[in-house]
Amino acid sequence: MALNPQYEAIGKGFVQQYYALFDDPTQRPNLVNMYNVELSFMTFEGVQLQGSVKIMEKLNSLSFQKINRIITAIDSQPMFDGGVLINVLGRLQADEDPPHAFSQIFVLKPLGNSFFVQHDIFRLGIHDTA
Amino acid sequence: MALNPQYEAIGKGFVQQYYALFDDPTQRPNLVNMYNVELSFMTFEGVQLQGSVKIMEKLNSLSFQKINRIITAIDSQPMFDGGVLINVLGRLQADEDPPHAFSQIFVLKPLGNSFFVQHDIFRLGIHDTA
Repeated sequence: MALNPQYEAIGKGFVQQYYALFDDPTQRPNLVNMYNVELSFMTFEGVQLQGSVKIMEKLNSLSFQKINRIITAIDSQPMFDGGVLINVLGRLQADEDPPHAFSQIFVLKPLGNSFFVQHDIFRLGIHDTA
Repeated sequence: MALNPQYEAIGKGFVQQYYALFDDPTQRPNLVNMYNVELSFMTFEGVQLQGSVKIMEKLNSLSFQKINRIITAIDSQPMFDGGVLINVLGRLQADEDPPHAFSQIFVLKPLGNSFFVQHDIFRLGIHDTA
């Protein structure tokens, strides 16, 4: 499959759609439609999960009700299977916690006329003191 | 091709090897062997480059002589083409600049008994003030 020339619009559109669901606790369970039952991997703060059931168990266990999120950068690249690699950097504040930098990587895999999230790596940018 | 069960060791080993070359200005030109002439993409601070020639022009143009780098986290996932997705978070200080957080994503693609870097996204973690 060829490189998708729309990779940048796909990346930006996906990120907007994903966080609109993620950041609203009433919508968050709908993220299940973004992942595949078997073929999706997530690494959440170093914990590896495979498949939409385990991924959603994790996402649904997040108890914060309010997220204030600022996107700093979205970098996308076309992949040779027609997919899109996306890197998101930003900052988020959950409820009344202090704000933290975060990074999240998505690999979107083509499926019919759409995509699912094949790879997802999330990390808060909390660094040890030098 | 199947998932490579060694993905975590491959990711950690690659990161060590890559930064050993990158962080030594006399070794940095040898990074050319990590990239493919046509099939490698790099996004460096938002600038997109394709192919090892343009990528090395960029890397060889970096003028700092000394890098102090601290790796905070390496998260790797196996990919369904036998490749490895790697996310690196850390901090680096170039020469006497102030230290900055950084994130770098690599997608390693299998080639014979080894890998090349098919995708590389680098960003300093510099966020606008909220």
